[in-house]
Amino acid sequence: MGDELVLVDFWSSPFTARVKIALREKGLEFESAEVDLVSSVKSPLLLEMNPVHKQVPVLIHNGKPVCESTIIVQYIDEVWRDKAPLLPSDPYERAHARFWADYIDRKIYSTARLVWMGTSEVQETAKKDIIESFKVLESELGEKPFFGGNIFGFVDVSLIPISSRFYTLEKGGNFSLADECPKLVSWAKRCMERESVSKSLPDQYKIYDFAMDLKKKRGSQQQ
Amino acid sequence: MGDELVLVDFWSSPFTARVKIALREKGLEFESAEVDLVSSVKSPLLLEMNPVHKQVPVLIHNGKPVCESTIIVQYIDEVWRDKAPLLPSDPYERAHARFWADYIDRKIYSTARLVWMGTSEVQETAKKDIIESFKVLESELGEKPFFGGNIFGFVDVSLIPISSRFYTLEKGGNFSLADECPKLVSWAKRCMERESVSKSLPDQYKIYDFAMDLKKKRGSQQQ
Repeated sequence: MGDELVLVDFWSSPFTARVKIALREKGLEFESAEVDLVSSVKSPLLLEMNPVHKQVPVLIHNGKPVCESTIIVQYIDEVWRDKAPLLPSDPYERAHARFWADYIDRKIYSTARLVWMGTSEVQETAKKDIIESFKVLESELGEKPFFGGNIFGFVDVSLIPISSRFYTLEKGGNFSLADECPKLVSWAKRCMERESVSKSLPDQYKIYDFAMDLKKKRGSQQQ
Repeated sequence: MGDELVLVDFWSSPFTARVKIALREKGLEFESAEVDLVSSVKSPLLLEMNPVHKQVPVLIHNGKPVCESTIIVQYIDEVWRDKAPLLPSDPYERAHARFWADYIDRKIYSTARLVWMGTSEVQETAKKDIIESFKVLESELGEKPFFGGNIFGFVDVSLIPISSRFYTLEKGGNFSLADECPKLVSWAKRCMERESVSKSLPDQYKIYDFAMDLKKKRGSQQQ
């Protein structure tokens, strides 16, 4: 019997994108169950499959849910270990990869959101912070093609979904990422050459429109 | 050649306590390198070994640093797999354990601090939140002796250091944990019967005095 894989999904989520990339790296077929996260009514599927956090992504594997993107990616890597390993096999290198994935989780996505959603003072601080964090990541990348070395791996999967927000970040923060973090931009282009990545990331202009719509709605609610 | 293990440590940190428990579960000898986290001057050892976050714990294994408590505990479990496994061997159960350790990281320690350090309104909300999170954890524990079932494991290691804050929590929030969360209190007692735990956790009254001193200092700095 084959594996049944359903991804509880939302098109713009960078966290569901991570899971899609991992599944595609492994050559696994999956069904996407898109839920509406903008609506105030939570999807019954989401409430059933992730009652604690009520958030996407959830990967339902043969009926059993796995939640939280980095945990799902590790799960996929452990179950389908023989193809395209994402985490290194050496425990020390594995701890190193987990450290950087955790850094990305803490420093990148929530800060990025403030660059385009925050008020001007918050925005300025967030822009400074995210550029600083990108530079830390560039220094970790060094001259390697990918964070794990020559192989696209766990840290790359964690970070690459931010690239579909590069345009929104630049517009929101009024700066050029290519000027500030050229190595990061080159790395993102290199990742985008992989079908697993290009097929999984949403269009950057669609993300920009979506972010601006959301900002307008939030603004009018606050008035 | 034996393994050289040095733990960059601070006596009251619940996160270094996790690492000590994991090392003791595995029967490993280690040296503790206590740093002063109260001082405004960061320890050179900490800056060298964890330049990104500059936080304890760091486990230095044969000269190489591993940072972040849950990552260190996984590292210990992967390197010394044959004795007292902390994470289950099944990938689905492993993902489940990681989910709850992540829940604890997000919901427990930072909220607990607000119960005794926050202003009265913040304090009230934090108290409500932490009791709610404890109840979620109690429901996950169910009738099992430990979170992983009959075996003391990864989720137990993640959560048990909070028990040395129970007294401070109760005094700060003016409530009885035994009344609100009796199952959690029984679970903590069960964990404390293990030498790995009782040897690794600081005295609860010493923690209370330390927290109150810190609160006083912060208060006088804010005036």
